[in-house]
Amino acid sequence: MQTFALKGNVIYTAHRGKLELYPQSYLVCEAGKVAGVFRQLPDRWQGIPVEDHGDKLILPGLIDLHVHASQYAYRGLGMDMELLDWLECNAFPEESRFADLGYAERAYAIFTDALLHSATTRACIFATLHRPATLELMKQLENAGLPCYVGKVNMDRNSPDTLRETTGQSLSETRYWLEESKAFSKVKPMLTPRFIPSCTDELMAGLGSLQREFGAAMQSHLSENLSEIRWVSELCPNTRFYGEAYAQAGLFGGSCPTVMAHCVWSGEEERALMKKNGVFIAHCPQSNINVSSGIAPIKNYLDEGQKVGLGSDVAGGAHLSIFRAMTDAIQSSKLRWRLVDQETPALTLPDAFYMATKGGGEFFGKVGSFEPGYEFDAVVMDDSSLPTTRDCTLEERLERVVYLSDGSPCAKYAAGRRLF
Amino acid sequence: MQTFALKGNVIYTAHRGKLELYPQSYLVCEAGKVAGVFRQLPDRWQGIPVEDHGDKLILPGLIDLHVHASQYAYRGLGMDMELLDWLECNAFPEESRFADLGYAERAYAIFTDALLHSATTRACIFATLHRPATLELMKQLENAGLPCYVGKVNMDRNSPDTLRETTGQSLSETRYWLEESKAFSKVKPMLTPRFIPSCTDELMAGLGSLQREFGAAMQSHLSENLSEIRWVSELCPNTRFYGEAYAQAGLFGGSCPTVMAHCVWSGEEERALMKKNGVFIAHCPQSNINVSSGIAPIKNYLDEGQKVGLGSDVAGGAHLSIFRAMTDAIQSSKLRWRLVDQETPALTLPDAFYMATKGGGEFFGKVGSFEPGYEFDAVVMDDSSLPTTRDCTLEERLERVVYLSDGSPCAKYAAGRRLF
Repeated sequence: MQTFALKGNVIYTAHRGKLELYPQSYLVCEAGKVAGVFRQLPDRWQGIPVEDHGDKLILPGLIDLHVHASQYAYRGLGMDMELLDWLECNAFPEESRFADLGYAERAYAIFTDALLHSATTRACIFATLHRPATLELMKQLENAGLPCYVGKVNMDRNSPDTLRETTGQSLSETRYWLEESKAFSKVKPMLTPRFIPSCTDELMAGLGSLQREFGAAMQSHLSENLSEIRWVSELCPNTRFYGEAYAQAGLFGGSCPTVMAHCVWSGEEERALMKKNGVFIAHCPQSNINVSSGIAPIKNYLDEGQKVGLGSDVAGGAHLSIFRAMTDAIQSSKLRWRLVDQETPALTLPDAFYMATKGGGEFFGKVGSFEPGYEFDAVVMDDSSLPTTRDCTLEERLERVVYLSDGSPCAKYAAGRRLF
Repeated sequence: MQTFALKGNVIYTAHRGKLELYPQSYLVCEAGKVAGVFRQLPDRWQGIPVEDHGDKLILPGLIDLHVHASQYAYRGLGMDMELLDWLECNAFPEESRFADLGYAERAYAIFTDALLHSATTRACIFATLHRPATLELMKQLENAGLPCYVGKVNMDRNSPDTLRETTGQSLSETRYWLEESKAFSKVKPMLTPRFIPSCTDELMAGLGSLQREFGAAMQSHLSENLSEIRWVSELCPNTRFYGEAYAQAGLFGGSCPTVMAHCVWSGEEERALMKKNGVFIAHCPQSNINVSSGIAPIKNYLDEGQKVGLGSDVAGGAHLSIFRAMTDAIQSSKLRWRLVDQETPALTLPDAFYMATKGGGEFFGKVGSFEPGYEFDAVVMDDSSLPTTRDCTLEERLERVVYLSDGSPCAKYAAGRRLF
């Protein structure tokens, strides 16, 4: 791969709470990795191609740790319901349609196009339980150059006939799909039991075996909503907390990257086990509001050393933009401070930027920062369409882009390759 | 004025909780007023010009009951602070710059252009204490065809030297400005004591006299933030509640239209007086989150018969879009249900649509509905740029526009005149 540089106003964060600000600097890409950020281009790279982005902002590509590609068609619809009703009335009927590969092609084309033109470079994505449709999504993402994880969903109970597998089917289809997924070079498969209410103990145990065999990453939902948590405790009487149901199947972090969406109501034991096993938390603030789940104590999670990134959770969240997730995270943490816990201060912009980049990026390896050796994922944001009479600092310009832009970069790079 | 009709998918609400949906219908304008909505164009209007908006949505113009035009330049900046610090560090220094009329012209041109291209047709607007700059804003809004209320702000205490009048100056400038404002035909002045901490009793009494003399409308802030409320109770020891400080000056509704922004923490006595006097509440959910004020009990206010509309409260709110204010209102009411009061259900989309149109519109007279006799204010929304594989009903299309659009109409009408 060619060595090249971007020129512009480079911003990233290496440590939570601190922004690195490089006005009019050079971000060098060598062999698909960040070589460094420099005020002057070092002598050894004189003559490499430089893409000059003028006065625009160059940020790490954003990370979406939780999004349902199969729900994108009905984002912003049916929002006057709580989680379990919403799944029944909205999510399950829509997902059932992905049995039709033609429908899946059309729906996933809309999703992939939206993701491509967003500031998100990498995501952990739920497809549906349909293997051919899931492979179609993976193919589209691979072609778009987006190095995402994608999950074929597993569901063998408590779901409509049109969206339920037998345990045996679920496991054999998953194995077949894991094999087929080896054809992709950028997009990777991840195990995706929907959530405990949708998966029998036998299915979970089988997925645990598959994980050990294939070394696959894993994603699911955890402690999102109080009604859901009560239901899990009824379904799994031999557990002390929700996360233990995953742990009993050997599917709660440890050797394989694992991300759990939500964790709004995780108690002490659950948190301790997440921390011990390095389980990532996908904080999805807008979804947690839309389906009336609550506000996760994210500042506490960060302070206690949990691994936390942000998720759009489309279609529980209506917006694919991780900039929007950043402001939703800050805003809901302010309400949490005011209404729930005045001991814990609100999240700040640098906190949110960290979660959106390096915090979530760690799930993918060395991703989400412009420190040397990181994957070269970058987006270029043009804030000239946000007029103001003020002379803004670089930090203020970042804040304006986060709060005010439509989230669309004017150029985008993933793993060292320019996508547009 | 010419009689004409718009053709398209017409949506409005006459009663809270119920949407009126007219697919492919005619909305007739006669003498600047709505004549009615018809599936077929009645015989008596055959031959009038018809503007065919195809499959787009035609909605009443939205109403913004609370916005600071002078703060538009720094929307989305300095959001990591609570109200009183935020005023000190952000609002006051920026507003001081409007002493320079050249600056005011540039800043208000940006605001007016943004308001013109939003879906808002009418607003209650704070300028600054500077009379010439306030007149400049009124001139720009008049030229844009936006029939708004604008307030020259009054402040004679607890503010920096650069943003404080003497009591005498404040009253004489206000009188002069009320006289000068008679030059405008669409834009109207409204009295605007900033809030009780910025106004001495003498100033408030003088403004009360001016209101009785000129019959002017009035706007201010009320019970927004707990620290502010404590401060007011110290400043006005002879009041039992915040609103009483306005009432003692004769400035709390009654004969003149009066709107109070926020009312997050209004108690029983304050609510009773607001209801008795017909004081409008401008609910500004995003601002109440951004400056950590809390969540106003809006569903309760609506149920007890208060008059409630929505406000963007730029720049406490970062977004001028009242569609965004609708979703912010719904979302924060869900958190209020989950975290504060499970007796009161969340606001629904029809609730929010009512507040954004007819609820707030009532402040301006017969505004915010397509019932016959209402002012002809309308916006045309094109949702074709929000792709989906689903066949959506009209109600679903409205929900998608509210949650997902950037808030920009493709055509806009105010008081019977097409603005673009």
